[in-house]
Amino acid sequence: MSLINSKLIQEKGLTPYQFPNPKESLPEIVIPNAIPDDERVWVPQSEQVWFRPLCLNASHGYWTNLLRVRKSGVLSCHRHPMGVHGYVIKGRWQYLEHDWVATEGSYVFEPPGDTHTLYVPEDVEEMITFFQGNGVMYYLDPRFHTTKV
Amino acid sequence: MSLINSKLIQEKGLTPYQFPNPKESLPEIVIPNAIPDDERVWVPQSEQVWFRPLCLNASHGYWTNLLRVRKSGVLSCHRHPMGVHGYVIKGRWQYLEHDWVATEGSYVFEPPGDTHTLYVPEDVEEMITFFQGNGVMYYLDPRFHTTKV
Repeated sequence: MSLINSKLIQEKGLTPYQFPNPKESLPEIVIPNAIPDDERVWVPQSEQVWFRPLCLNASHGYWTNLLRVRKSGVLSCHRHPMGVHGYVIKGRWQYLEHDWVATEGSYVFEPPGDTHTLYVPEDVEEMITFFQGNGVMYYLDPRFHTTKV
Repeated sequence: MSLINSKLIQEKGLTPYQFPNPKESLPEIVIPNAIPDDERVWVPQSEQVWFRPLCLNASHGYWTNLLRVRKSGVLSCHRHPMGVHGYVIKGRWQYLEHDWVATEGSYVFEPPGDTHTLYVPEDVEEMITFFQGNGVMYYLDPRFHTTKV
């Protein structure tokens, strides 16, 4: 327990949980300023497209990241085996396959099996979205039923 | 396919996925302005604490919401059976049980089994955090090993 919290607890009469977490518990992850100042932390994926990894679970396959795409950038056609949740921090984007636009401050749920191509319009300098997903990014050619290969 | 997208596809030479999604697919969820203008959309949980539900999966138990807490608000002691991911949209908060502070723009991963009490300091007018979690919010008395009940 930190000194700050001890003071808080004493002054406010708050009672924290009195027992340790299970000894098998993973540590928490805390990343201040998830949008990094250091440009090197952005992993380039293709022209005008970057990922900033935040979490990848090696036994279950869940993950979180930030996706950054600048104007006219395309995250090519891909499918998710499980649901994906997104919160648009900045800018706006759309999928070629859907008729809605994900605007700044929007929440988006992408259902399992959805196959889509993300595009950022030319008038958007930069979009950044927080994604929480599960399982692979299954990139595919939009002209083939690759699930049958 | 919308008219907007058809135009985009034609002008940019982009190819969307050519096949329909599986017929069993759920629809996507798109919520513009996840932080609502209508105050009634915020569900009060306790004094100075509100949830704004975004997604709840009835068969698997995953969910997303926004949590809003105003100064001195406490989200009482609870445990998560599975991991929780958070992105701090506004303000800042801390857990009594941990010595870090979740600041605006931070990413936080809470591991399965973590038991904690969320507190928003008096100098924070309002904090809003996007959470993606899995399974129940297991509220408990901080002084009992309720897992043994």
